[in-house]
Amino acid sequence: MKENELNLDDVVAILSRTPASLAALLDGLPNTWVSATEGADTWSPYDVIGHLIHCERTDWIPRARHLLAGETRPFDKFDRTAQFTESESKNLAELLATFADLRRQNVATLMGMNLTADDLSRRGLHPELGEVTLEQLLATWVVHDLDHVGQIARTMAKVYAEAVGPWSQYLSILQDRQRK
Amino acid sequence: MKENELNLDDVVAILSRTPASLAALLDGLPNTWVSATEGADTWSPYDVIGHLIHCERTDWIPRARHLLAGETRPFDKFDRTAQFTESESKNLAELLATFADLRRQNVATLMGMNLTADDLSRRGLHPELGEVTLEQLLATWVVHDLDHVGQIARTMAKVYAEAVGPWSQYLSILQDRQRK
Repeated sequence: MKENELNLDDVVAILSRTPASLAALLDGLPNTWVSATEGADTWSPYDVIGHLIHCERTDWIPRARHLLAGETRPFDKFDRTAQFTESESKNLAELLATFADLRRQNVATLMGMNLTADDLSRRGLHPELGEVTLEQLLATWVVHDLDHVGQIARTMAKVYAEAVGPWSQYLSILQDRQRK
Repeated sequence: MKENELNLDDVVAILSRTPASLAALLDGLPNTWVSATEGADTWSPYDVIGHLIHCERTDWIPRARHLLAGETRPFDKFDRTAQFTESESKNLAELLATFADLRRQNVATLMGMNLTADDLSRRGLHPELGEVTLEQLLATWVVHDLDHVGQIARTMAKVYAEAVGPWSQYLSILQDRQRK
């Protein structure tokens, strides 16, 4: 995809569907699934929803505004473990509802920006990656959602890694990200 | 997980949620997403839903009945490309509705079997994998759903593999199953 070819309708189509898709997958699931991880220092579905909430609050829209304002300092650093304190005492249903609310507001904010091709090519400074554009930030928002949907599916699949018996060789998700 | 420890409530919890989760993710999405693939001989989200329908019709419940009947011949072989003819002329919304209907019926059938621990340990013959149990078949049904949820997320994420620019190094789903 060349620069400035990002279609904002395509972006909004995914961003606006993620909360309902994750709620339909996770809400009311037994703890076997919700608290499963892929091992030490990996995230459960519950942890992932807390992370997505933290991103809605501190990453996508704040960084889009930073780019549009022409800031020359780098973005603020992102805290990748914030959910371990922020989600405390909240159940999964509450987290899913919070994520859906924040996403609805953020998609409305994004659409209200009426971004032009010139806006999409605005450049800013990522604290680790260097120069990035607004277009790249929006594409990343979408792929980040899908990455975590895939992570949740993979993490839950591995709960039955042994239970599937000889079928495991046909179920390639069980081999993804396996530690040797 | 040891043999005969499969909890049927956990199985049904995932099986009954997959259709709504996929519908919330996919229904009404622009074709950019629905028809995307990971390259030649890989499946689009549209293809995957057709495959899931074919499995509901010919794989899970028919094989469970085969095992419970104590059949000594192997299962019928599964057609992994049936969806390319069966989905013809159907749009994605129709496929999603068909999948949801079939899954609802099949989960009801599964629950109506009132399976015991003895039933779960019933053995049968897979045409390629050899001896398998009913418990392994049911675990495979669940992991197969999650495998295809992960595949759909990965396939759609790769539409923006270039658009994310330098962020690609943080988005590990873009590297999964990449051909060298």
